[in-house]
Amino acid sequence: MKPIQIGLLGLGTVGKGTYDVLLRNQAEIQRRTGRPIQITMVADLDVERARSMVEPGCQVVADARQIIANPDIDVVIELIGGYGIARTLVLEAMAAGKHVVTANKALLAVHGAEILSAAQHKGVMLGFEAAVAGGIPIIKSLREGLTANKIHWIAGIINGTTNFILTQMREKGLSFEIALKEAQALGYAEADPSFDIQGVDAAHKCSIMSAISFGIPMPFAHAYIEGIDQLQSEDIAFAEQLGYRIKLLGISKKTDQGIELRVHPSLVSEKTLIANVEGAMNAVMVNADAVGTTLYYGKGAGGEPTASAVIADVVDMARLMSSHVDARVPYLGFQSAEMVDTPILSINDVVTCYYLRLGVADQAGVLASVTGVLADHEISIDAMLQQPAAVGQDRTELIVLTHSAKESVMNQAIAKMEELPTVLVPVIRIRKEDLN
Amino acid sequence: MKPIQIGLLGLGTVGKGTYDVLLRNQAEIQRRTGRPIQITMVADLDVERARSMVEPGCQVVADARQIIANPDIDVVIELIGGYGIARTLVLEAMAAGKHVVTANKALLAVHGAEILSAAQHKGVMLGFEAAVAGGIPIIKSLREGLTANKIHWIAGIINGTTNFILTQMREKGLSFEIALKEAQALGYAEADPSFDIQGVDAAHKCSIMSAISFGIPMPFAHAYIEGIDQLQSEDIAFAEQLGYRIKLLGISKKTDQGIELRVHPSLVSEKTLIANVEGAMNAVMVNADAVGTTLYYGKGAGGEPTASAVIADVVDMARLMSSHVDARVPYLGFQSAEMVDTPILSINDVVTCYYLRLGVADQAGVLASVTGVLADHEISIDAMLQQPAAVGQDRTELIVLTHSAKESVMNQAIAKMEELPTVLVPVIRIRKEDLN
Repeated sequence: MKPIQIGLLGLGTVGKGTYDVLLRNQAEIQRRTGRPIQITMVADLDVERARSMVEPGCQVVADARQIIANPDIDVVIELIGGYGIARTLVLEAMAAGKHVVTANKALLAVHGAEILSAAQHKGVMLGFEAAVAGGIPIIKSLREGLTANKIHWIAGIINGTTNFILTQMREKGLSFEIALKEAQALGYAEADPSFDIQGVDAAHKCSIMSAISFGIPMPFAHAYIEGIDQLQSEDIAFAEQLGYRIKLLGISKKTDQGIELRVHPSLVSEKTLIANVEGAMNAVMVNADAVGTTLYYGKGAGGEPTASAVIADVVDMARLMSSHVDARVPYLGFQSAEMVDTPILSINDVVTCYYLRLGVADQAGVLASVTGVLADHEISIDAMLQQPAAVGQDRTELIVLTHSAKESVMNQAIAKMEELPTVLVPVIRIRKEDLN
Repeated sequence: MKPIQIGLLGLGTVGKGTYDVLLRNQAEIQRRTGRPIQITMVADLDVERARSMVEPGCQVVADARQIIANPDIDVVIELIGGYGIARTLVLEAMAAGKHVVTANKALLAVHGAEILSAAQHKGVMLGFEAAVAGGIPIIKSLREGLTANKIHWIAGIINGTTNFILTQMREKGLSFEIALKEAQALGYAEADPSFDIQGVDAAHKCSIMSAISFGIPMPFAHAYIEGIDQLQSEDIAFAEQLGYRIKLLGISKKTDQGIELRVHPSLVSEKTLIANVEGAMNAVMVNADAVGTTLYYGKGAGGEPTASAVIADVVDMARLMSSHVDARVPYLGFQSAEMVDTPILSINDVVTCYYLRLGVADQAGVLASVTGVLADHEISIDAMLQQPAAVGQDRTELIVLTHSAKESVMNQAIAKMEELPTVLVPVIRIRKEDLN
């Protein structure tokens, strides 16, 4: 059978990983696919460098449009990233009748509606397994493996950079700034780490999973996003004393009122599997009505792990192209006519548990006044930890774990606490997730 | 579009789960599939009981062949179990042109070659996601999600009954016999638990995963199988002191000599995620060249978790049947002409680490003679633990963790140790897996 011919846009880390894995495992992949798969064209601005990285038979061009214009190319793999030129090229490739595989979460989260409808309109396939959690087949699991279920919630560690930083902060007691510098030195964080540490990358991925889990249009515009850049190592240590770890979670949950979609640091019990996902690893928990809780764990980034997902999409396409070219599985898991535009809840309406840290005066009555404010707001207390004041200090730290409360009510309670004369500094608040 | 019509054979726990989930989530499932899916016929020997469990519109029959003979039935779900009548009915259903979904690991492990070739021959689809690890989409992940990879090894906790028993033994210090009785009382073990506790059920599942991972014919006949029925609670406690937990693992590993396929109790470091999979939960680790290590966790048994996988297979079929009826993904992941009959290694050729427990005389020179035997066989020692002899006792326990050694060499070393006059009882040997 004629080989599937691939054009690769972008020969960075993931591009090179994809090229290398397809070449190295071509026998194995052909045994699985029933048809050879070859990257016959690569587009990269640095043509010389690219040429040194590929086999002589592979054509290297500077202009991606030469690939799109080539009638022999069946599938275009977009690994440029961002939503500038990548968006234009993906749309042009589809318009030219090419199937497209992309690892571009930003593009899908921000321009998903446009991209998916173009694919449907042109009758081409679009694969994006690599856009979420690297090599973990979480898109396939949500879209095909769990189709019997009403999904209740998903919660994931879906950004390796921030998980690596949090692990370093906990294990070595480092500050955020120092841990970030270490992560940059080791290649786990980019020179400009904003998208990672501010939670935007996790929110892109969580939005894609949310759309698939609940059959809603891409909800990224409504996401609540809080990163780890304000997180203090003291809170990681206090959380640990209480039996918790702090993770940057992407959470989406279906409630009667609408859908929660939020990324923020969260306390999770150290007894849960997800709390023990350390370093740059990723994991996604899915809670659903029939299957209960499942968890998917693996490398969420890196050249070859991401290539694993890119190529899985190509093999899926190749297996279908051997017979017909329609997309068998709808892009977002649900048939496109069946998307339901459910409201995404404001963070004010989210109900969760809280970790609060108060810098308080070391004097009688402080505890009573703080707990009084919580009681006034009908927020009940799960656990407390009071540090003895250091010698010569008149300030101490009071840590409170609460049971569940509505964010807007907690905001009011915190405002009241901060009005107390004995509460000396702004209250630190981190949400705590039970994930049962 | 005309509904997909299902005939269900067997209305036990999983049958009822499947019926209930399909009914309860029919709107959600139709939104995903683009087509309604209905169980219109159920076969069960106890017709009265079955009739009380289904909607009035669903026809209940005692004779499964009435379902197979009905031209309106598109898909037959076999949930009878075993390899007697289930085998006959699956083959007859395929001969009648029905697509088949089954949760029957014993049938596939033992008669897989016959069943798969019948499906191929008749051009019908066969789904068996539910046969391994219940609701965890591990078959889909291996067969579709990881197609880019050379898989190096798989290791799984794939029998909930034995994992529940091992958890009870460790947490409560129970003996195997008492823990088994508790598991039976709580419904986690069957009245006749032989297949579970002797490791046969895990070997069925591991064989299916091995065939898919490596593209080999179903290898069950060559599996090395050792259960947990000989495991003593002392060894669980000693392992814990050394930082390990004992799990019944199903392991299959590709080596240069052939393929390892073995089920036995294994020490795994308590720092690994899989060591922390407790109670009746299942988890499968997959190590592959591009993606690295991934892990899949969830409920491995029970009515609705298993139903989740059964229905996912039906939805896969329904999505395909809306266009054409060929099996898109080959049953064992690799194209059938591409199966390679790689040798399955004898347990004697397997290389692994070991935990040894020796009941030795409490006298000088014992340690030297035991370590001398290991040195003679070029087996090096990773850690040792010697219990002080109890007052008035002249026997003590010596625990040795070894680095990797070939099973046949370890057998010789153990025989030599048992010849030593200071080694008073047969040596306890449990394999230890690094899973890195």
